[in-house]
Amino acid sequence: MDLKPTKPLSGFIELLPAQQRLFDECASRMLGVLKTSGFNMLDLPAIERAEVLTDKDNWDEIETQMFLFQKGDTKMGLRYDGTVGLARYVAGHLNDLTFPFRASQFSKRYRGERAQRGRYREFYQMDMDIMGINSLSTNYDAEIISVISRALNSVSEFVGPHYVNVGSRPFWDALFQYLDLTDAQKKDVFVLIDKREKMGDEEFAAGLTDTLGDANKENQIKSVFTNGYEFFVNKSVNLDSAISELKNFMQTLSDFGVADARIDLGTTRGLAYYTGLVFEFKLAKHPELGTAAGGGRYADLAGKFSKTKIIGVGAAIGFSRMFVALMENNQLDLSRFLSPVDAAVLVMGNENVAYAFNVVNALRDENIATVVYLDTDKKFKNQIEYADKISARFSLIIGEDESKNKMIAVKNMQSGAQSQMSLADTIKHIKNI
Amino acid sequence: MDLKPTKPLSGFIELLPAQQRLFDECASRMLGVLKTSGFNMLDLPAIERAEVLTDKDNWDEIETQMFLFQKGDTKMGLRYDGTVGLARYVAGHLNDLTFPFRASQFSKRYRGERAQRGRYREFYQMDMDIMGINSLSTNYDAEIISVISRALNSVSEFVGPHYVNVGSRPFWDALFQYLDLTDAQKKDVFVLIDKREKMGDEEFAAGLTDTLGDANKENQIKSVFTNGYEFFVNKSVNLDSAISELKNFMQTLSDFGVADARIDLGTTRGLAYYTGLVFEFKLAKHPELGTAAGGGRYADLAGKFSKTKIIGVGAAIGFSRMFVALMENNQLDLSRFLSPVDAAVLVMGNENVAYAFNVVNALRDENIATVVYLDTDKKFKNQIEYADKISARFSLIIGEDESKNKMIAVKNMQSGAQSQMSLADTIKHIKNI
Repeated sequence: MDLKPTKPLSGFIELLPAQQRLFDECASRMLGVLKTSGFNMLDLPAIERAEVLTDKDNWDEIETQMFLFQKGDTKMGLRYDGTVGLARYVAGHLNDLTFPFRASQFSKRYRGERAQRGRYREFYQMDMDIMGINSLSTNYDAEIISVISRALNSVSEFVGPHYVNVGSRPFWDALFQYLDLTDAQKKDVFVLIDKREKMGDEEFAAGLTDTLGDANKENQIKSVFTNGYEFFVNKSVNLDSAISELKNFMQTLSDFGVADARIDLGTTRGLAYYTGLVFEFKLAKHPELGTAAGGGRYADLAGKFSKTKIIGVGAAIGFSRMFVALMENNQLDLSRFLSPVDAAVLVMGNENVAYAFNVVNALRDENIATVVYLDTDKKFKNQIEYADKISARFSLIIGEDESKNKMIAVKNMQSGAQSQMSLADTIKHIKNI
Repeated sequence: MDLKPTKPLSGFIELLPAQQRLFDECASRMLGVLKTSGFNMLDLPAIERAEVLTDKDNWDEIETQMFLFQKGDTKMGLRYDGTVGLARYVAGHLNDLTFPFRASQFSKRYRGERAQRGRYREFYQMDMDIMGINSLSTNYDAEIISVISRALNSVSEFVGPHYVNVGSRPFWDALFQYLDLTDAQKKDVFVLIDKREKMGDEEFAAGLTDTLGDANKENQIKSVFTNGYEFFVNKSVNLDSAISELKNFMQTLSDFGVADARIDLGTTRGLAYYTGLVFEFKLAKHPELGTAAGGGRYADLAGKFSKTKIIGVGAAIGFSRMFVALMENNQLDLSRFLSPVDAAVLVMGNENVAYAFNVVNALRDENIATVVYLDTDKKFKNQIEYADKISARFSLIIGEDESKNKMIAVKNMQSGAQSQMSLADTIKHIKNI
């Protein structure tokens, strides 16, 4: 019989134990920040009705982008982000939730497209949203940025420092209005702006000319990327309002203790559903990773599910993207994550198992991560090799003598030093070092 | 426009925030036990190649049981358990892992069948496996049972006490051989034994007669359920070997400190891939939940993926099944899980936001779960109502006076007592109570 393949499907992530421990440690720290910030953790289904996932009817095309399937008469598929499920959930539980409602999700998302390097088909994102009914202060936008900043700080030993770029959708809306662009031009220019970094200045300029054919308008748009909003002060009420919102917001961010925030009007978050301020976090030492986290304000989260207007600010941290890419590039030091345990209990002879179990239970009761090697007929050499391979800090050797005298031969695996100790002293010894 | 449905698909679980907090608390405690026991957490893809998920070619029938779909030429689907992915992973990483290898998974699994009450289409199981190459002492089977027992003890305030039934596949193999059953009879009788509890004694007896048509053999099989193995001592070498393995194992379990374990030869774990000792955990106060956790020993985990023989013992805790059912039956007290926070900071007037942010950051730095109400134009009444609704333990009110004097008006939401404090005293006050 042919053996089945052992590799996961392409685009699916599978970590080794030490990598997984680092991944879990980072998740745990960042989730700790979210909990301390009063976010409610939600764990929503990974499968949604197709009509929830999309408004479009071109199933064949959508099927190439998503994982879709049918059960009975129901078309359904795997979520591609956290927002669509959140909108459904919040709309369905308006009376069960207290607003402003803080929600966080840390879950797997799925993209059906063919896998490319750095693009996964199954990946984790960590979302956070603060939602109000009918209104919500932009102070919350500053708080979300503060929380993401704290979350990234909690893992800065792995990812290094970060900065955040803040943009404004209303600024562009007001500018397009001021420049009297047609709806079609607005849309095309917005797409150009979104792709600007990828295409480079020349191609961007050419795109503007194609779309607008008006050197004056083109130059004014281009000036945003060199001079920011300066040129547009006192040009229109809407421009002034957008500019002053942005300036005030930077002050609020600073009040909230967010360092390394800067205005970058080129930050637009593409064609997503944002309507207000938008932001993107970058890792200063890892420009190759692009955006580590991004988000912004939306004016109507759940309009497709409810007549109640849910206004909010949300963001997603590209968790797998960030950590898995760093691991794939060998940019994370795994040495601290090599071992699952502090102590490996080695048992010489099955008649000593009962005493060894006492020791193991006592260590585990003290929250000392402990494995026990229970193939008691194996030679000492094999057993100590095992303890060495799993990078146990200590081997606790139990043979006839130890069992009889209720002692433990404790070997420090780093120094090689070994001495007999009581169980109580062993626990102290392991905890003190 | 019609609004889209807000309910999740049938068979999919969606918890409210307080329920989710209880769920997460139980997961965290149980995972803590697994980590203390040196298990390596694995997070494998939820999607596997169809050929990995099944050996069968009757796709139409399998499609009703699983979520299957096709991308390009590749048939794939969502995992229905943790074992199939584990087998693939271990076989693919034989040289990266140290054996005996301890693996644990806490992940969502999927069943495509139509949903019934208590049967979910998406659910969490918590798996643990210890695997050796070519051999593995049954001491590890005892350890796995000990670890599950500790995990269930860590949540006993929610699920109550448990006990564990231990059965033996080799016993039945030896008995069938001793009774000289044909292969077809062996299979049919084994199915009957597995369904015995559901069908009741009469139907079971009738089934045996249908299959065997031999009153003597039928009675001997029935005697197992009344007298255990007693009648079969000294009947055959294989029976004696199975019986003595089971008796020794009960002693090992007791050495490992496992209370409430008992032999129950009716425990067989159905048609699963187990080949040795098997076990099932039940909750003493919740017989309606059936088996809370179950597992056993397998002789060849990854034979379809590798020529290396991986022998092991594994178990799964029916995590969603247990906790979601208890919540659905209102058998879990959510009162301790109602609030996401300790402190709600209420800000009267936007000019006080900067000082409020200082307070919020300081509290979060001290790991005090804190939300801040940032719609600063809302009246005190609205803000305190919010703090009340989210069951905050303390409201920290910041107005003009507090901001000017760098003080905080701290209100105990339970007693109603309120007093002005410095930030340092506020932190002490919240931490001490």
